[in-house]
Amino acid sequence: MSLTNGEHSPTMKKYLEKNVFAEGELLKKILDLTLQEKLTTKDDEERKVVNFKHPHELQKILPLSINYSGCQSIEEIENILQQVVRYSVKTSHPHFYNQLFGGVDEVGLSAAWLLEALNTNVYTFEAAPVFVILEHYMVQQLCRFFGWDGGDGIFSPGGSISNMYSIALARHYKYPETKESGLFGRKELSHYSIQKGASFMGFGSNQVVVVPSDENGRMRAGALRKTIHRVKEEGREPLIACWGGAVILSDKHKHLLKGVESHENLVYGLADSIAWNPHKMICVALQCSAFLVKHKGLLSECNRSGASYLFQQDKFYDVSFDTGDKSIQCGRKADAFKLWFMFKIHGLDVFKKRVENAFEAASYLEREIENRNGFRLVLKQRECTNVCFWYIPPSLRGQPDTKEWWMKMHKVSDVSEARKPTRQLFIYLFQTIDLTVFGNIHDENTSLWHQLLRAGWSRKVLSWWGINPSNANTL
Amino acid sequence: MSLTNGEHSPTMKKYLEKNVFAEGELLKKILDLTLQEKLTTKDDEERKVVNFKHPHELQKILPLSINYSGCQSIEEIENILQQVVRYSVKTSHPHFYNQLFGGVDEVGLSAAWLLEALNTNVYTFEAAPVFVILEHYMVQQLCRFFGWDGGDGIFSPGGSISNMYSIALARHYKYPETKESGLFGRKELSHYSIQKGASFMGFGSNQVVVVPSDENGRMRAGALRKTIHRVKEEGREPLIACWGGAVILSDKHKHLLKGVESHENLVYGLADSIAWNPHKMICVALQCSAFLVKHKGLLSECNRSGASYLFQQDKFYDVSFDTGDKSIQCGRKADAFKLWFMFKIHGLDVFKKRVENAFEAASYLEREIENRNGFRLVLKQRECTNVCFWYIPPSLRGQPDTKEWWMKMHKVSDVSEARKPTRQLFIYLFQTIDLTVFGNIHDENTSLWHQLLRAGWSRKVLSWWGINPSNANTL
Repeated sequence: MSLTNGEHSPTMKKYLEKNVFAEGELLKKILDLTLQEKLTTKDDEERKVVNFKHPHELQKILPLSINYSGCQSIEEIENILQQVVRYSVKTSHPHFYNQLFGGVDEVGLSAAWLLEALNTNVYTFEAAPVFVILEHYMVQQLCRFFGWDGGDGIFSPGGSISNMYSIALARHYKYPETKESGLFGRKELSHYSIQKGASFMGFGSNQVVVVPSDENGRMRAGALRKTIHRVKEEGREPLIACWGGAVILSDKHKHLLKGVESHENLVYGLADSIAWNPHKMICVALQCSAFLVKHKGLLSECNRSGASYLFQQDKFYDVSFDTGDKSIQCGRKADAFKLWFMFKIHGLDVFKKRVENAFEAASYLEREIENRNGFRLVLKQRECTNVCFWYIPPSLRGQPDTKEWWMKMHKVSDVSEARKPTRQLFIYLFQTIDLTVFGNIHDENTSLWHQLLRAGWSRKVLSWWGINPSNANTL
Repeated sequence: MSLTNGEHSPTMKKYLEKNVFAEGELLKKILDLTLQEKLTTKDDEERKVVNFKHPHELQKILPLSINYSGCQSIEEIENILQQVVRYSVKTSHPHFYNQLFGGVDEVGLSAAWLLEALNTNVYTFEAAPVFVILEHYMVQQLCRFFGWDGGDGIFSPGGSISNMYSIALARHYKYPETKESGLFGRKELSHYSIQKGASFMGFGSNQVVVVPSDENGRMRAGALRKTIHRVKEEGREPLIACWGGAVILSDKHKHLLKGVESHENLVYGLADSIAWNPHKMICVALQCSAFLVKHKGLLSECNRSGASYLFQQDKFYDVSFDTGDKSIQCGRKADAFKLWFMFKIHGLDVFKKRVENAFEAASYLEREIENRNGFRLVLKQRECTNVCFWYIPPSLRGQPDTKEWWMKMHKVSDVSEARKPTRQLFIYLFQTIDLTVFGNIHDENTSLWHQLLRAGWSRKVLSWWGINPSNANTL
């Protein structure tokens, strides 16, 4: 190989000559495709949300196979890119109604592209000076939104991991010795959070205690108090985990988070940590999840392992900015930058409006459902923008909802027929719900079928949780 | 608000009018910036790798503050973007030597941009049909590279999480009941892997058993056998975790993974899982981590929680492609696409060459170090492309390396002076190493100082682990 800086070895030369595109050409193609295919445009609802193909069909259609020599022409590459876009879901489409996320914001997408181009890792200040400072700033800002002064936090790869952080911190706060000695031989602990986290982290899913909720699906403060009392009497120790939401940005709706903020104390005990996923209602490109902690220092204490090859303490700069050892990851994306850039460019008023717009849209949908024959709201009082409803077929309308009536609801013909996205103009979500959650029905097999295509609601269909700012405006 | 599809509510109208840039304009700016600032170009070594500022300086320089009204002009936005780029590390620079990752490949970056624009989530086939199929294909392909037919796998947010997956699976394979009952009351378990994972997952870091390595830093197969025997005698149960590497792509170097592949059995016991981070030697944009499992079905068994609102079983398509319940995440990025796209466009030969090029560069550096006065290699035989060496100041050269000599090495003046990136033409990594790892020296405070700037090696400096394909060619 060449020993002179700047010259290339024979193998690398061959590689460079082989390239079938000029420098930057492929990146330009992606920009063109993004604009031509309107991947970030929200107002073209006549296009299909998806060209649906079954898995086995798509396996045949897509040019899956890889080989040793790669692509030989730019046309071949273009064709691959077009196939990928053609059969992908257009998540920014106004009729994409998903319970988790919606379309991406162009400002947020710009930030995401720049992040990818800079390709760095926020594990040390040295590797990502700008992004480490921005994450530090955003964590402080978000804590202040919730009334915490001097809290701490970290951006994690999603809400599930954030929830695991909260469990780990609660365990460490109560039993710091478990960091080294583990859970072996301890008394049992309890907490409410995802079962996965409990299994993954060695508690076991049996330790998850479900706290009863009221008729609107809200956790009952009294029941929480009783549950905590009960598990303590059983000799177990309760761990309280986290909650979150973009409504903190709206003066009109932030009261929904009372009890999480430090100003009020409506729920028994104040939250010690908050998991907020701006990749949901804020429309930051997936992934963007903030995990905030009220207790400064706890995150580091809990997760620090002090690997000297990563986190040297004798550097020439202030190593307190090397935040990597707070994390359970090593490589970690600078997701905080996307949120900061969106707040910076748009200003907070835009997000306030977006949140309020989504709430308005949810109210509108609720009124429509109440006034439309054959539909019934699941909850009397909505807590957020999630609108849940039943579809009642003509033969079952106007009858008392006895146990027998619910059994018949269960017999409504299979949803698969109704849900086939033949028109492909929208995607929404349905859920098979155990009705015992919603009433006194005890048949665990009773299910909800959304026969909405059949019902002629194809342009107005909404699902379990579906409204967010990227589709609120098309209702 | 407007009830007609396509029209905008007053709040949204105001928001849309407020935008200070035309549709697509900001994305074009990012492309221009990427090309102008040569963020993906690897052959301009005269530019600075970083404009270094201390954390407190950068906090003053960056326009951190956010407000309610946002930016009022495109110039303001451009200025922000330029500041972000100016003070960020140019990780694609030929003199960026990091132990974890290097510059991004343009093909991989194109895939990353498209992924961000499509903004989807690989938790179900329905939400990400193309990317779910591609991940499925890549997992099968990667398993085949390692000689496994019919294995399973998942792309995770980094190697640390992959290692936790491997621990979770090993625990589940041996003790499936712990998924529900937790670790409470169990006999203690042991494994070797990251301490963080052990703490996070409830084992406790004390359970991590270190297996002795030979003089070249390789785990001793005999010692591993003895360690397993010993912990079993202590009434504990060993869990074997994972290993990985891009060398599988090179016929010349893949023998280094013997024992991991199923063809050979050089190490005691074959690997049950492999963690491979293509965001390291393959230069995929961070994050791209594959976790592969030999035992089909185990990943799903171990992590499944069956949340009905996410993973309905009565859909109209083959739900075995809804891979989300294998994961401990809910929202998960389609990182597999980036790797697939790079393999597809470049062809596997390019990666073979890149890997071999990095090995050649490491050999060249090794020879240079051996022949240069005042430098000494740490390992007699290099295992991968990581070249580790000591710098010996003139006053300590030509003397026997007694305990006293090593003590003097420790007194070499502080590295912080030597390492200040005043010229900012390269970034490399140093590590304070406990010398007991490398010999019979028992002073735990003895440290390694890389005084390389002072030594005049500014253009040839290499660090602990530093060579990968994005910088191999500039040696």
